[in-house]
Amino acid sequence: MRKTKLNELKSYIESISKMNSALELIYWDMQTKMPKKAIEQRSGIIEHISGEIFRMTTSDRMGELLDYFVHNIEGLSEKDKAIIKHARKEYDETKKIPEERYREFVIAQALSEGAWEEAKEKKDFEIFKPHLKRMIDFQREFVEYWGYKDNKYDTLLDKYEEGLTVKKLDKIFDELKNGIIKILNKIEKSGKQVNRDFLLGRFDKNSQEKFALFILNKMGYDLKAGRLDESMHPFTISFGNKDVRITTNYDNEDFTSALFSSIHEGGHGIFDQDVPDDLQRTGLDTSLSMSIHESQSRFYENILGRSKEFWEYFFPFAKYEFSEFKDISLEEFYEAINYVEPSLIRTEADELTYSIHIIIRYEIEKALINGDLDIDDVKEVWNRKYKDYLGVEPKNDSEGILQDIHWSDGSFGYFPSYALGNIYGAQMLHTMKKEYQGIYDDIRNGELGGIHMWLYENVHKYGAMYSPSEIIKNISNEDLSCKYFLDYLEKKYLSIYK
Amino acid sequence: MRKTKLNELKSYIESISKMNSALELIYWDMQTKMPKKAIEQRSGIIEHISGEIFRMTTSDRMGELLDYFVHNIEGLSEKDKAIIKHARKEYDETKKIPEERYREFVIAQALSEGAWEEAKEKKDFEIFKPHLKRMIDFQREFVEYWGYKDNKYDTLLDKYEEGLTVKKLDKIFDELKNGIIKILNKIEKSGKQVNRDFLLGRFDKNSQEKFALFILNKMGYDLKAGRLDESMHPFTISFGNKDVRITTNYDNEDFTSALFSSIHEGGHGIFDQDVPDDLQRTGLDTSLSMSIHESQSRFYENILGRSKEFWEYFFPFAKYEFSEFKDISLEEFYEAINYVEPSLIRTEADELTYSIHIIIRYEIEKALINGDLDIDDVKEVWNRKYKDYLGVEPKNDSEGILQDIHWSDGSFGYFPSYALGNIYGAQMLHTMKKEYQGIYDDIRNGELGGIHMWLYENVHKYGAMYSPSEIIKNISNEDLSCKYFLDYLEKKYLSIYK
Repeated sequence: MRKTKLNELKSYIESISKMNSALELIYWDMQTKMPKKAIEQRSGIIEHISGEIFRMTTSDRMGELLDYFVHNIEGLSEKDKAIIKHARKEYDETKKIPEERYREFVIAQALSEGAWEEAKEKKDFEIFKPHLKRMIDFQREFVEYWGYKDNKYDTLLDKYEEGLTVKKLDKIFDELKNGIIKILNKIEKSGKQVNRDFLLGRFDKNSQEKFALFILNKMGYDLKAGRLDESMHPFTISFGNKDVRITTNYDNEDFTSALFSSIHEGGHGIFDQDVPDDLQRTGLDTSLSMSIHESQSRFYENILGRSKEFWEYFFPFAKYEFSEFKDISLEEFYEAINYVEPSLIRTEADELTYSIHIIIRYEIEKALINGDLDIDDVKEVWNRKYKDYLGVEPKNDSEGILQDIHWSDGSFGYFPSYALGNIYGAQMLHTMKKEYQGIYDDIRNGELGGIHMWLYENVHKYGAMYSPSEIIKNISNEDLSCKYFLDYLEKKYLSIYK
Repeated sequence: MRKTKLNELKSYIESISKMNSALELIYWDMQTKMPKKAIEQRSGIIEHISGEIFRMTTSDRMGELLDYFVHNIEGLSEKDKAIIKHARKEYDETKKIPEERYREFVIAQALSEGAWEEAKEKKDFEIFKPHLKRMIDFQREFVEYWGYKDNKYDTLLDKYEEGLTVKKLDKIFDELKNGIIKILNKIEKSGKQVNRDFLLGRFDKNSQEKFALFILNKMGYDLKAGRLDESMHPFTISFGNKDVRITTNYDNEDFTSALFSSIHEGGHGIFDQDVPDDLQRTGLDTSLSMSIHESQSRFYENILGRSKEFWEYFFPFAKYEFSEFKDISLEEFYEAINYVEPSLIRTEADELTYSIHIIIRYEIEKALINGDLDIDDVKEVWNRKYKDYLGVEPKNDSEGILQDIHWSDGSFGYFPSYALGNIYGAQMLHTMKKEYQGIYDDIRNGELGGIHMWLYENVHKYGAMYSPSEIIKNISNEDLSCKYFLDYLEKKYLSIYK
């Protein structure tokens, strides 16, 4: 009886997963290959399949099966428990909201996204403001349905990062903010000027692609189970561990743009390719939280990909492919790709100041969701925080509060994952260095398989079996702490900006 | 009441069509972009979605709706009637077969396809023979469920070509066969040698692609609503009229291979791009029969694409792109691309002898389905017919009876469409020339818009609204006749082989 129900549930989850992969593939094609005129017909297909997935995920039968396992969970394997828990979370997230209100939210989302696009184009926050307010109101209402203890924002954080609370995050982010600002001040005082002019010029697209593929291959991203394509914004997408695709965007005039986004997405891609076969189509075939996924992409992009040891091996190949670097030394190149400059746009920020952009969004989201900040004041608060923390001021709303798409569809609670990824990554590095003798010699020789293996053993192979806090505890025997990330940043950047 | 039911039926058909487009896209990706290791996971997705489509197409609700319209069809628009008729045909085709037997057939199909692949690889018909027998037995059994009047094979013909019967087709194909063999004999007697060595050499793939795209664009294939990609076997696939993709296969050593397959698929592509918006997602968004679709691809590939007028315009561009042709005259080129040689492989046959390959298959299929030919004799009959009609003999089974995939999944009745496409195309040309003054001047100037417009007005814009016989009657005021095709062949080939 229980066995039958379990099999039914798992096969139902498998069907949903297959439909999801179909949807992902249709989306990938839309972003990379679709002819221009197809957009409307494509939306029709996407809408239909999304509707089918929604119907399956929230069906009565799904509810019955999940309810059965509320009282019949004991004695199941750890994996089966995780499968059920994960399906339950997805089910509740939608089903606790009255259907009528959810439908209204979806319509409001669409209008809001449209308004955001227009507002960004016209650099006018006023166009987007009423929609942002509606998105916040919806989220506040949803939090009531979902329930919360201390802080309304906790519920939203928990969606993306199980168990995370404002109380914990305030502490971490305050420490991180102060630490980064301290380093930033020292950098400014150092007076050191780093030249990065040679990274800007004319870089052949085919050469950029060839070089990125060379690095991806060395990293361990499997091109027989993946592809690198071009899209407007880089992303990683998985249709199962044997088909995990990444994209990048080539900028003829900027050497670093496609390079580091390829390495970043490669880090995501390796993760999803590594999740074992027996977790495929169970709902556990990627990390449970965005932050752990992001820890992998940022580990590859920054900790590894912007390290001097990495370029000791790869810079000669860069010189071989791009004659622009023929008179540039490794040292000059290394400093240039780690150039620090407080700036306005999150996605273009350097490794050091990036997290400050996230913290600003976190502080604002938290206040908005808890009703501590009025919608009419939000733009002013945004601009002031940028001035206070980074010393820069947006000239218009598009390079300020309108820059990110996330708020337009009501994704609150998501931003912190980006900064958490940095912190997780550095904490992993700390343990990795202790356990992995000769890590830097291997990197210098372009041997990146040891790092890949370590991440596989400690992170990737678990898929979504464990929460981020379980994963980091298992690795480092302590809770998440930003001291490792701050140590790493201080050591790295104060040696460049002496 | 009727209006509500009609809307429900149409919206149901629309949903099925969207799922079909999703499936087609997933298939396209598999053939063109999918990384190697993904094949098994991809099959899982395809199986699930095919299953869903099957479930929808044969659901009780679909049956109820269709049954309702058996007695409530009067007074509906011509279009609505066609939609219902088409859905009914699809429904009956499956539902008339007992579910259990259909399931067994699907399993047998899979085994048979596998056996065919192995047999072809090992050049041994014996491996495939028992599976071919099962496929024939299944089709004979299915014909009993579907019903038939005079001839069992009629029912299979009707699946692909509404209203076509053995009685009609015997007459047409006999005339065609005799006519072609007569021309072939004259060619042999002419003693004329055509040189085609310069078509074989080293042709850069990028140049081939560039040249194919140039021609496709001139033909009117819309690259903003389509793409040209590479796949093992060329095909055309539509996800709606705004996204119709074609593929080709580049052979470095043969100039004509990718060129003519691109033009061929372009002809299919133009058709599907042309079907009007109001027929999209109704089941009527492509031609009703394979033969009419094939008439378009063959019209572009052969009648237009292998005409001297066409190359009067395009040959200078071929010379510009491929230095191999610098000393070749238009006349030499024209003769080379129309080189006639009776051969063993259907897909590589020239325009003149191609139809003979089809007629051989037709004669064998007809006899097998009617029980007039024993499975143990089929190989011998195949080889004898090739000897009798074309004067060639297979050295092994792979270049003989095992060459085509069609029989391995039980697709009997399909082959004739290919030859019918040639006949329809020539009959259309006959009327087109009468109605379109200056057609050859336009072709000589690379102005192919007039031909496109004529085909749109007479064929494409109707989608699947009319049967092939209605379409050709509407165009030419007479029934299908192979005299136009034979006249065309005789005039063309006897002027080359004087």
